[in-house]
Amino acid sequence: MTTKKLLSTQEISGHNTPDDCWIVVDNQVWDVTDFLEEHPGGSMIILKYAGRDATKPYSEVHTPGVLKSNLSPEKHLGTLDESTINDEWAKPPPTETRELAFNEKPALHTLINSHDFQEIASRTVSKKTWAFYSSAATDLITRDANKSCFDRIWFRPRVLRNVRSVDTKTNMLGVDCSFPLFISNNSSYTMEDLRNVAPSANFFFQLYVNRDREKSAALLRQCSANPNIKAIFVTVDAAWPGKREADERVKADESLSVPMSPSQAKNDKKGGGLGRVMAGFIDPGLTWEDLVWVRKHTHLPVCLKGVMSADDAILAMEAGLDGILLSNHGGRNLDTSPPAIITLLELHKRCPEIFDKMEIYVDSGIRRGTDILKAICLGATAVGMGRSMLFATNYGQEGVEHLIDIMKDELETAMRNNGITSLDEAGPHMVHTGDVDHLVPSTNWHPYARKVAKGRRSPYISKL
Amino acid sequence: MTTKKLLSTQEISGHNTPDDCWIVVDNQVWDVTDFLEEHPGGSMIILKYAGRDATKPYSEVHTPGVLKSNLSPEKHLGTLDESTINDEWAKPPPTETRELAFNEKPALHTLINSHDFQEIASRTVSKKTWAFYSSAATDLITRDANKSCFDRIWFRPRVLRNVRSVDTKTNMLGVDCSFPLFISNNSSYTMEDLRNVAPSANFFFQLYVNRDREKSAALLRQCSANPNIKAIFVTVDAAWPGKREADERVKADESLSVPMSPSQAKNDKKGGGLGRVMAGFIDPGLTWEDLVWVRKHTHLPVCLKGVMSADDAILAMEAGLDGILLSNHGGRNLDTSPPAIITLLELHKRCPEIFDKMEIYVDSGIRRGTDILKAICLGATAVGMGRSMLFATNYGQEGVEHLIDIMKDELETAMRNNGITSLDEAGPHMVHTGDVDHLVPSTNWHPYARKVAKGRRSPYISKL
Amino acid sequence: MTTKKLLSTQEISGHNTPDDCWIVVDNQVWDVTDFLEEHPGGSMIILKYAGRDATKPYSEVHTPGVLKSNLSPEKHLGTLDESTINDEWAKPPPTETRELAFNEKPALHTLINSHDFQEIASRTVSKKTWAFYSSAATDLITRDANKSCFDRIWFRPRVLRNVRSVDTKTNMLGVDCSFPLFISNNSSYTMEDLRNVAPSANFFFQLYVNRDREKSAALLRQCSANPNIKAIFVTVDAAWPGKREADERVKADESLSVPMSPSQAKNDKKGGGLGRVMAGFIDPGLTWEDLVWVRKHTHLPVCLKGVMSADDAILAMEAGLDGILLSNHGGRNLDTSPPAIITLLELHKRCPEIFDKMEIYVDSGIRRGTDILKAICLGATAVGMGRSMLFATNYGQEGVEHLIDIMKDELETAMRNNGITSLDEAGPHMVHTGDVDHLVPSTNWHPYARKVAKGRRSPYISKL
Amino acid sequence: MTTKKLLSTQEISGHNTPDDCWIVVDNQVWDVTDFLEEHPGGSMIILKYAGRDATKPYSEVHTPGVLKSNLSPEKHLGTLDESTINDEWAKPPPTETRELAFNEKPALHTLINSHDFQEIASRTVSKKTWAFYSSAATDLITRDANKSCFDRIWFRPRVLRNVRSVDTKTNMLGVDCSFPLFISNNSSYTMEDLRNVAPSANFFFQLYVNRDREKSAALLRQCSANPNIKAIFVTVDAAWPGKREADERVKADESLSVPMSPSQAKNDKKGGGLGRVMAGFIDPGLTWEDLVWVRKHTHLPVCLKGVMSADDAILAMEAGLDGILLSNHGGRNLDTSPPAIITLLELHKRCPEIFDKMEIYVDSGIRRGTDILKAICLGATAVGMGRSMLFATNYGQEGVEHLIDIMKDELETAMRNNGITSLDEAGPHMVHTGDVDHLVPSTNWHPYARKVAKGRRSPYISKL
Repeated sequence: MTTKKLLSTQEISGHNTPDDCWIVVDNQVWDVTDFLEEHPGGSMIILKYAGRDATKPYSEVHTPGVLKSNLSPEKHLGTLDESTINDEWAKPPPTETRELAFNEKPALHTLINSHDFQEIASRTVSKKTWAFYSSAATDLITRDANKSCFDRIWFRPRVLRNVRSVDTKTNMLGVDCSFPLFISNNSSYTMEDLRNVAPSANFFFQLYVNRDREKSAALLRQCSANPNIKAIFVTVDAAWPGKREADERVKADESLSVPMSPSQAKNDKKGGGLGRVMAGFIDPGLTWEDLVWVRKHTHLPVCLKGVMSADDAILAMEAGLDGILLSNHGGRNLDTSPPAIITLLELHKRCPEIFDKMEIYVDSGIRRGTDILKAICLGATAVGMGRSMLFATNYGQEGVEHLIDIMKDELETAMRNNGITSLDEAGPHMVHTGDVDHLVPSTNWHPYARKVAKGRRSPYISKL
Repeated sequence: MTTKKLLSTQEISGHNTPDDCWIVVDNQVWDVTDFLEEHPGGSMIILKYAGRDATKPYSEVHTPGVLKSNLSPEKHLGTLDESTINDEWAKPPPTETRELAFNEKPALHTLINSHDFQEIASRTVSKKTWAFYSSAATDLITRDANKSCFDRIWFRPRVLRNVRSVDTKTNMLGVDCSFPLFISNNSSYTMEDLRNVAPSANFFFQLYVNRDREKSAALLRQCSANPNIKAIFVTVDAAWPGKREADERVKADESLSVPMSPSQAKNDKKGGGLGRVMAGFIDPGLTWEDLVWVRKHTHLPVCLKGVMSADDAILAMEAGLDGILLSNHGGRNLDTSPPAIITLLELHKRCPEIFDKMEIYVDSGIRRGTDILKAICLGATAVGMGRSMLFATNYGQEGVEHLIDIMKDELETAMRNNGITSLDEAGPHMVHTGDVDHLVPSTNWHPYARKVAKGRRSPYISKL
Repeated sequence: MTTKKLLSTQEISGHNTPDDCWIVVDNQVWDVTDFLEEHPGGSMIILKYAGRDATKPYSEVHTPGVLKSNLSPEKHLGTLDESTINDEWAKPPPTETRELAFNEKPALHTLINSHDFQEIASRTVSKKTWAFYSSAATDLITRDANKSCFDRIWFRPRVLRNVRSVDTKTNMLGVDCSFPLFISNNSSYTMEDLRNVAPSANFFFQLYVNRDREKSAALLRQCSANPNIKAIFVTVDAAWPGKREADERVKADESLSVPMSPSQAKNDKKGGGLGRVMAGFIDPGLTWEDLVWVRKHTHLPVCLKGVMSADDAILAMEAGLDGILLSNHGGRNLDTSPPAIITLLELHKRCPEIFDKMEIYVDSGIRRGTDILKAICLGATAVGMGRSMLFATNYGQEGVEHLIDIMKDELETAMRNNGITSLDEAGPHMVHTGDVDHLVPSTNWHPYARKVAKGRRSPYISKL
Repeated sequence: MTTKKLLSTQEISGHNTPDDCWIVVDNQVWDVTDFLEEHPGGSMIILKYAGRDATKPYSEVHTPGVLKSNLSPEKHLGTLDESTINDEWAKPPPTETRELAFNEKPALHTLINSHDFQEIASRTVSKKTWAFYSSAATDLITRDANKSCFDRIWFRPRVLRNVRSVDTKTNMLGVDCSFPLFISNNSSYTMEDLRNVAPSANFFFQLYVNRDREKSAALLRQCSANPNIKAIFVTVDAAWPGKREADERVKADESLSVPMSPSQAKNDKKGGGLGRVMAGFIDPGLTWEDLVWVRKHTHLPVCLKGVMSADDAILAMEAGLDGILLSNHGGRNLDTSPPAIITLLELHKRCPEIFDKMEIYVDSGIRRGTDILKAICLGATAVGMGRSMLFATNYGQEGVEHLIDIMKDELETAMRNNGITSLDEAGPHMVHTGDVDHLVPSTNWHPYARKVAKGRRSPYISKL
């Protein structure tokens, strides 16, 4: 490199903005202003060293010749006058990465997956909120299996497919969607509130049938009149509130703090966290016959939310419903109830024709784009996320949008790395389930029980 | 909301009792006295904020309009005079949740499952008591498998069944019971003591046959004459005391503290915790022939406690016994002896007719209502709990009653969330055992041993 | 209880010896001198409270009436004069259980199982000794599987067998033994040294064939002339020293402490802990043909130590050897070599006739009496222990004897709780191996490899 | 031992060099200068005690007579004059094993396996470098399974084979190699740089096909003209950059430190660690058709790097390629993609003829010589290591050479302890895969999916 003029640290330091950016590498001074936008690693990392010596970070990722071969000669401004190096120059660039307090929320953009939202919520929301959001039934076996069963299903990726562009579009119950994810949740806001803030959004209404049927009938009429609502999901996996102990412990602690008679304390022994309280109005007497009643009050597609067996899936199909959502309520209701992805496999084993007759949805345990793709491969139309989205509300609307963007990006990456570019290409041939196949029932009786169970026959609705 | 009169914090603070209860939400003052009893979340949480600002806890669970729509307008008393807010007002409500010392027992009502009783006992009972209650044979493999095998059995829950009311009633050996649980335990009290405090209770007498048969005969005569005793369970899984090391370590430590000759120390090398000491009078020479002798001394139903194989279950059936209790003594006697729930499955595989001939009971590893239901589904009449009930005695009679209430509540919740309301509906079709099926023997020989075992033939009693 | 005379704490305190022992329970004073020997819980625990108030320890294990019903009335001496209670009286009894320093050996009798010997050795022997004793090949997978495969085999215990007396006697290669255990070990002492201290003991000589055959021939001649030696075990599982990294790290650290040239350091890169050093004289060129040579130099029974496959077991049987010892050298030589108990199962699957033709021994992973019994059930004549016995030498001869006593006691307990009283009754029908069956090869080729392996044929000796 | 003259500690201390080395054992003084080189345990351990008392370390590994029987009598110089013992003499020998700082690199020769290189790198390289080297896709399931699947494959070792000399030579694509290992890596240096420093080395060129095909064509022409390059491996498992979160977190943190608008932060939400940046130029549009184009630009053998299914392996075979490298990119691209060793087993199940038609390579998860041998047994020609070699660059060229030496030594040890001396003898009969067989697909559809997948047919090239 030809010797050019000597430049002092003082002079170099002045060129430290996006519009006028010099850096020093190996004592050579370069004007990289025009290069900022072209840098494959982004402009930020260069701007961090604007007007500074960037030799160290540069050499961590580049060999010596790269700079010279990417910049035209006139961008080489001169040589650092080493005699002007002083303490100020030698300092590392300022950084804002101060240590966060334990219960302080980091900037949203530093959260890069659904686990992060859970982790941050565990530290920053109130004890009571955390208990309600995170709790699941008793020993948490189903909650954990919901995740681990996805992890035990392996992809069978194909290579040398053109995956330049990928399309996650799909259609749920006649509604076009940008990707196969919905948010499975009970809202604190009325449908009117939601419509006001999102006038063009589509909703599926999750109905908890009230003990007072007339209240539910009114809700159904409202839904039918609301053009944003495209389907009704009747919740059937929460007939009775599960025992969510983290939630109940908050309640149990709380009761310490007010004077109460022993008899009151005793009556309260069944716990009764927020989960039990909120479930108070749900009717545990709901049956297949009630679905006829639901149909009477709405022209919308009707689906069941909370199917946990092929047996009920078959009943739903025979009853002419429009879809089912396989769900164990996020493991919140009955511990050791089967993960939805296992029930999805049970449908393939026991009633594969169901996939032609109705739409199948899945929730419980979805944490990754790969989880979404596995469910789609096994015949699901789309998947729901509940708990993770609750954790994302910790950052308000922006948080939820950020998490949705992350899930979509993860799904696209999973599709490309499996060698597909459209969800139409997904199928059971793309997954190997040998590690969980023994968990999937093959029949409606126990394989080595002597005889078919006594007890009442499964109810059946011939016509809805 | 119409502006009403301004109310000072001083005035509001006075209305802080169950009979006169005001709260402030979003600066509006409400009289909630009459609402206390109706509150779905219970009165306690409201009373905690009686005469105070409840905006924060309210908004954690309610949307703004809920209060207004649940209370009549005249309950709105006015607006908080914000100028009267002072330090006293801003303080959070008093709480009694002081930190408990490590070895202090928390209030009974804060214990919400059987694990809690174990956890608290581990911290608050004496070292020796804990060692005796909690210990199990050698490497604790059976003790842990007793629990984990239940956890590896999955439910197959059904939905849309009317589960408004649930009934856990059953019948054990002719005795009606409110739910299928008994306490499996050796008592420090005589039958007379027990009868005095619980004159109308029913008992099954667990007999440890004494080396001195006449002592056992006398006991059997007493039992037969005692109208509260409905059956005899002959203990057969404790022929020889197991090596319960936690228990023996307490003993080994203790022997340090008294002078003893080396020879004494040496003789003591086999340990000998409380378990071994207490087993001293049990006869290891008990055989099938002795059951004839038992029958002679009582007209009561006779069951075997401690069967660990289908082979002995078949012998018991052929011997005309009234029932068997599948048990490995809580894993306390022989490590890697099979969990009772696995033996129950072995009966289905190898001798399903047994369920028509005698009653089958199960203990060892029951910690949850779901465990009870799984055993019932697989044909058990009822289950026993031992260790957890010992831990509950840490709170006396009330503790045991509280744990029993918890177990019943858990069983009811499990039944409802499986879609059944009576134990008659339970059956093997309700569980999937694919994750443990490989642990269940199919024959009475080893599947790839060359020939049937040599050695003595199993004894057999043609007629009892 | 009739009021008797008041006794002062001072008076009571004097009666505190085995020959004159009073205790106080519930303020009543008893003379328990004559009862000391009869106490089911032993005399030591009473003597601890000799001349003291024993109410607390008494009530932990007894109900109030027990004392009265076990002692004659004249042993009741009177009532404690509570006015004489002082600080001295209220103190707990002296105890010698001072906290041991981390690297101090506790009294031998407080060690109650083989794990204890390992735990204590890890803290009290030199770093180098520990590394050599405890280390195993590379990632320790085989070392850990040696133990866990035993743990995954379940018993099928029988009840109502008379197990009053149990007999562990067996016979190894014509030698009567009190129980089926031998110590598998390389000794630092010559056969003469050993014979001097144990003139009537029987030995099996473990031969490591030397590169210099004449040295081994001399050893064989010595063995043949030594009446204490009953058999020769030719070591074949240590053809090449394994990579025992804990051992090699001690060596690597040590080399830091002396000046050495870089080239020396480089040459040393293969590590070379004590294991490699000690293996230096073993001949890696040993073949089946050499066994002919061994036979020539001794009239004693010849066994192979270190068989890891049914294929070599079959060759040994065909070669007319007297026995084989299934062993992976405690996992010290080749990581992911199969546990010996798995190889024992492979024999049942692939060559069950072998159990009639030769004696089968097992080592590697034996830690419990239950492990011994499982090996015997599956056809082993006896088992060897190596590493645990090394750990026991930490307490000298007494330590080894104590561990042997423990193992025998554990075996007897396991036999009784399985319902057998003689090793002749043990058989494969007593164990269920469903949890490890998938680890046992069924053929001598890979189940889904296209064709039988190329490469040289297994060598074969038609006649030894 | 005859009494010889008394020697003072002062006199002895002077003989403390490799050329003049005395030691004291049991108070006897020996000249061991000539013995230093013969010592089986190496000279260093003796030199550590040169001129000192070596009784303690000697007795830890030797019995008393060993020294006398190995040295000639004239080497016995005399007896220690105990009266001259002083504090200086009693001190332990100086040691240089000062505690290293946490982030200080220990001497290279103390690293004895591939894990050590990872452990040291984790503490001593920059945070950014560590994140890039160590990171893998999302939940790290594939990264961990890459290792654990090797660990779950068991050897079936044979004994009594002559393993005095072992030969690891093999041939890859016509090139003779000293052992079956290659380094799988993207280099920061040009081929010219590499050739300059290693003029006689053979290379396989790993081609990442550029979006700008002409750049790749130029590279291919360069390769063809370079006599050191023996084959082209076209990378196909990195069509799209995986989500390597450790890597992306470094990036996310960094962006905190420069001022940026919220919109910029938002656009950056997909993370984009070094992995994504570096993948920027790779063409995700690559298809089987492009291989025809590759063939046109080179006469060298062409292999595919990154095959993850038997289906693509079959296509590669049918396309006439020279080899395939089974790889999931070290688990860096798609989480829950199958470990390469599982895909290797899939080839045996589904297309065993492939092993006659082309060479099969394996990478991802190789950490041990046993891993290499397992892959060779199952038909691989050789294996690649990537991540571990990156960690070894932490010690420069010497580090990489040291790790290669370690791997070769481990492979030789594994071969010997399996009873083979040449890789030709390795075959599937040497491994038992029963613990992972359920993870290996048997067909190209899902075993219980109703019908063969819809979606596009796999592309196929009839002729390259």
